Amino acid sequence: MSKGTATRGRILDRAVSLASTDGITGLTLGRLAESVGMSKSGLFAHFRSKEELQLRVLEAVIENFRDEVVRPALQKPRGLPRLRALFEGWLIFSDHPRTPGGCLINQAAVELDDQPGTPRDFLAQAQREWLATLAEACRRAVTEGHLASTVDPELLAFEIQGIVLSRHRSLRLLHDPNADALSRKSFDALLRREGASRDQAS
Amino acid sequence: MSKGTATRGRILDRAVSLASTDGITGLTLGRLAESVGMSKSGLFAHFRSKEELQLRVLEAVIENFRDEVVRPALQKPRGLPRLRALFEGWLIFSDHPRTPGGCLINQAAVELDDQPGTPRDFLAQAQREWLATLAEACRRAVTEGHLASTVDPELLAFEIQGIVLSRHRSLRLLHDPNADALSRKSFDALLRREGASRDQAS
Repeated sequence: MSKGTATRGRILDRAVSLASTDGITGLTLGRLAESVGMSKSGLFAHFRSKEELQLRVLEAVIENFRDEVVRPALQKPRGLPRLRALFEGWLIFSDHPRTPGGCLINQAAVELDDQPGTPRDFLAQAQREWLATLAEACRRAVTEGHLASTVDPELLAFEIQGIVLSRHRSLRLLHDPNADALSRKSFDALLRREGASRDQAS
Repeated sequence: MSKGTATRGRILDRAVSLASTDGITGLTLGRLAESVGMSKSGLFAHFRSKEELQLRVLEAVIENFRDEVVRPALQKPRGLPRLRALFEGWLIFSDHPRTPGGCLINQAAVELDDQPGTPRDFLAQAQREWLATLAEACRRAVTEGHLASTVDPELLAFEIQGIVLSRHRSLRLLHDPNADALSRKSFDALLRREGASRDQAS
């Protein structure tokens, strides 16, 4: 790894951490430069604009998500074990120490939804792919016989997204100590509603 | 109404609108002054700091929420009619034209959750009260015999919050035309899971 690449990686790590607490729109080149102990012009050699910085931050986080949540879950047996691994991985990902302010994807989604541009487009596409991955896992759980054939995979993916977002709200804003327990109860209730046996959904 | 009060109201309306798209932390006194056609010092006569402006914006939005969602729902019969009115009111509130960027409470919750201060405290308290209102409506639906006695009201409130947040994500970031249909299907499925008759949950 070249020195330039290492420096760039170190700046990105810092940017991800800052953006999780201050927001991705609150992440200015000036603030980041100060935080990594560089001049603003030094930073400009790595990221030419705030928009480029935002995009690189999002790319890094989505890559982490694929490495840490999606790929390990795809190693699990098809059906409920894989679906559960996707859900549990998502929860754990949200609490990773590199994002002390909680899941940066959720933070950025709310901040960027009304800000047209490349970062927003990239994030929306990644989110669409993620919901499709969740829906596909639900579909597989039906063909494996773990869930009822009446399952609506898009609805289930939408509801799982809801659990994780509700957890984010209750944990980050309200500091609710029950947020994790509520999330898991809710996920299990969802699976049982869709025909999982009590044994599979606990 | 004095001229000063009217001007302040007009500034606040503009601030609410701007904050829904640009974020409540992106709402600067400079940007707001420009948008209402006032000098920054003129604005300072009404709001002495960015924090005061954020707090007044949040107070205004929470007051709107109580007027437009909570109070009308409390006029509905106890039980499922009231619970459904709270849910439907929440959806409609999120799409109000005064907040072109979608529900400002959701926007602010994500932005402020790691920003200690009076605006965050105010928002968290309002959100706690709202979840308690939802849970109380669920409890009443049990005593009215509309839902099963096994209902966990806090879990149900958490899950309803999830539906509305998932809708926000799918609508605002993904422009998913099915977001409303998914939200209502999900709400009905939740009520049926908790013992509502097919007639009551449709």
